[in-house]
Amino acid sequence: MTIEFELLGSDGAARRGRITTAHGTIETPAFMPVGTAGTVKAMYPWHVAETGAEIVLGNTYHLMLRPGAERVARLGGLHAFMQWDKPILTDSGGYQVMSLAALRKISERGVSFQSHIDGTRHELTPERSIEIQHLLDADITMAFDECTPYPATEEAAAESMRLSMRWAARCREAFQDRHGYGLFGIVQGSVFEDLRRESVDALCGIGFDGYAIGGLAVGEGQELMFRTVEVTAPLLPDDRPRYLMGVGKPDDLVGSVGHGVDMFDCVLPTRSGRNGQAFTRRGTVNLRNARHADDPRPLDPDCGCPACTRFTRAYLHHLFRSGEMLGPMLLTWHNLTYDQDLMAEMRRAIEEARFAAFAKSFAAEQGRGDLDPV
Amino acid sequence: MTIEFELLGSDGAARRGRITTAHGTIETPAFMPVGTAGTVKAMYPWHVAETGAEIVLGNTYHLMLRPGAERVARLGGLHAFMQWDKPILTDSGGYQVMSLAALRKISERGVSFQSHIDGTRHELTPERSIEIQHLLDADITMAFDECTPYPATEEAAAESMRLSMRWAARCREAFQDRHGYGLFGIVQGSVFEDLRRESVDALCGIGFDGYAIGGLAVGEGQELMFRTVEVTAPLLPDDRPRYLMGVGKPDDLVGSVGHGVDMFDCVLPTRSGRNGQAFTRRGTVNLRNARHADDPRPLDPDCGCPACTRFTRAYLHHLFRSGEMLGPMLLTWHNLTYDQDLMAEMRRAIEEARFAAFAKSFAAEQGRGDLDPV
Repeated sequence: MTIEFELLGSDGAARRGRITTAHGTIETPAFMPVGTAGTVKAMYPWHVAETGAEIVLGNTYHLMLRPGAERVARLGGLHAFMQWDKPILTDSGGYQVMSLAALRKISERGVSFQSHIDGTRHELTPERSIEIQHLLDADITMAFDECTPYPATEEAAAESMRLSMRWAARCREAFQDRHGYGLFGIVQGSVFEDLRRESVDALCGIGFDGYAIGGLAVGEGQELMFRTVEVTAPLLPDDRPRYLMGVGKPDDLVGSVGHGVDMFDCVLPTRSGRNGQAFTRRGTVNLRNARHADDPRPLDPDCGCPACTRFTRAYLHHLFRSGEMLGPMLLTWHNLTYDQDLMAEMRRAIEEARFAAFAKSFAAEQGRGDLDPV
Repeated sequence: MTIEFELLGSDGAARRGRITTAHGTIETPAFMPVGTAGTVKAMYPWHVAETGAEIVLGNTYHLMLRPGAERVARLGGLHAFMQWDKPILTDSGGYQVMSLAALRKISERGVSFQSHIDGTRHELTPERSIEIQHLLDADITMAFDECTPYPATEEAAAESMRLSMRWAARCREAFQDRHGYGLFGIVQGSVFEDLRRESVDALCGIGFDGYAIGGLAVGEGQELMFRTVEVTAPLLPDDRPRYLMGVGKPDDLVGSVGHGVDMFDCVLPTRSGRNGQAFTRRGTVNLRNARHADDPRPLDPDCGCPACTRFTRAYLHHLFRSGEMLGPMLLTWHNLTYDQDLMAEMRRAIEEARFAAFAKSFAAEQGRGDLDPV
């Protein structure tokens, strides 16, 4: 165990914690913006930090193909390369190799595939994934796994999960312990409680610095996702961080924190921001909608980001209608600020033992819907 | 005359001046970044100011079609709309209506055309162009003219220029004098010295706050452009600013300042930046080129912009190869910084009566070419 996790308190199942890594601390529950190819899209890295983010996620699959892990290492590692001096978590490449690459061939050894960029052939094994994440200098390395597709039969889910568990043991073996650097295992098992339990047991037997819940937010819907989190999270050791991968929407974040999750990542705030979709305290607002064309009001009057404090809805609408890059730039900044504000509010609510009340008022506020048109 | 121009000094034909408008002062020679549709592409407006820019250009044609001049006026004018509180110059729409719109019909009255965005029919006349620029609240309004295509016969150039001169008189008539707001006339006449002289006489007879040289940088080449500027600039009144429209490349700027030009605008720094082309003290660098893939050095070690002070060439190369928005964002910032630094150096050189020496060392430095590969 080479990264530290301090459980500062809890409120029901919700937990308030602190992770300490080589590049700094992360207050949890935490949301990690996604910086797929060494950049959180449309953001200067110092603005990502200004939103309150304390850790970003990088993608092994993308970075191994371009610019290449060895090249990033020669250039001083991913922190220096992308000018982000706080913690970085890298995924293992397991998810993208199944969703993006062509001609995948999966075996006990690993996955061979063709690059979606230039068709060149590559291989990812548990050992190579760990090596790449080491070269990138990730503070938190993720075990190489197969993200079981949804839906899956119990038999297929079991077979996939057990392969991931064998790979997890190989990852633990390959990982070089260093102070401030940690390795997380990933629980699989689809929506089957027995398989999730078996997966947790397997991972805990190996021993990791943290535990991710994988294979969710892949189309099963919020109810089934929450139910799976609700049964899986309590099985995990109290003294290690829990990370729900690929989540999510603001109400997914609130619900999952309520079930004891500490960490999240998702492309939603950045991708939605580029598409004109804004998270607000009163739900999602589509700035491309004609109702905003003459609206002199701020997007979200309670938000402190530049999109909200400096510009009108009318201007943001104009930027998206005109295809101007400043639209995605401002709305990405806004959505990341929204998510970080939400996490900070949840951390305060847990500290003050009023998380249930917070979750209720959050849902009510979201349910109000957007401001009436001008 | 409702904007002020102070000629602070000169060095040969090169001039050092200061324009005072309703929204602030502009030290000349000045370069104006282009903010076509109410945004300097890929830039937060406060960063545009950080580069040293004291004035930006907005496009009447684009803004009249989207979001509409009356809408911008209702929202408080273009400064508030785009959050740029320094001076704004708007072009008249004359150039874009000829280069972008469909089904143009030009008459003594003006130009009717179809929007390139949605095919709707519109009309621009001298009176409507002035009204739009008033609605936008431009500090400097440009007369509505026809930018004579190149090449043109002397007869066609004369006819076109004389139409522009009749329109210029109508613009002067339509313009509402207000303190801090000014109207510039535009000299036409293609590359024909007699026509340029006739055009200058016509405009001076009407009387404007400043004089632009139009119809250049349209394919005639640098030599012919310089020759035309060289014969036209001295004909213009000493006590009014001179603006060379649509220029330009770094060496165009230096050469034209040497011929007595005070103001410039061009999409080149922003457009080139979006395409991976960087202006540097040693000439243009294409960051997409494979030679940069492993280069840990800054783009331009003498530049103070974030692209140069924070990142490596290898990273900038990676961003452009990966199609990441941060590439255009950083390189636009760099190119605008480069142009503003160049203008500041020229202003100092004129103040210190060493402009000719500056121009010579500038050309020598540009001629050195990029750094040797690593």
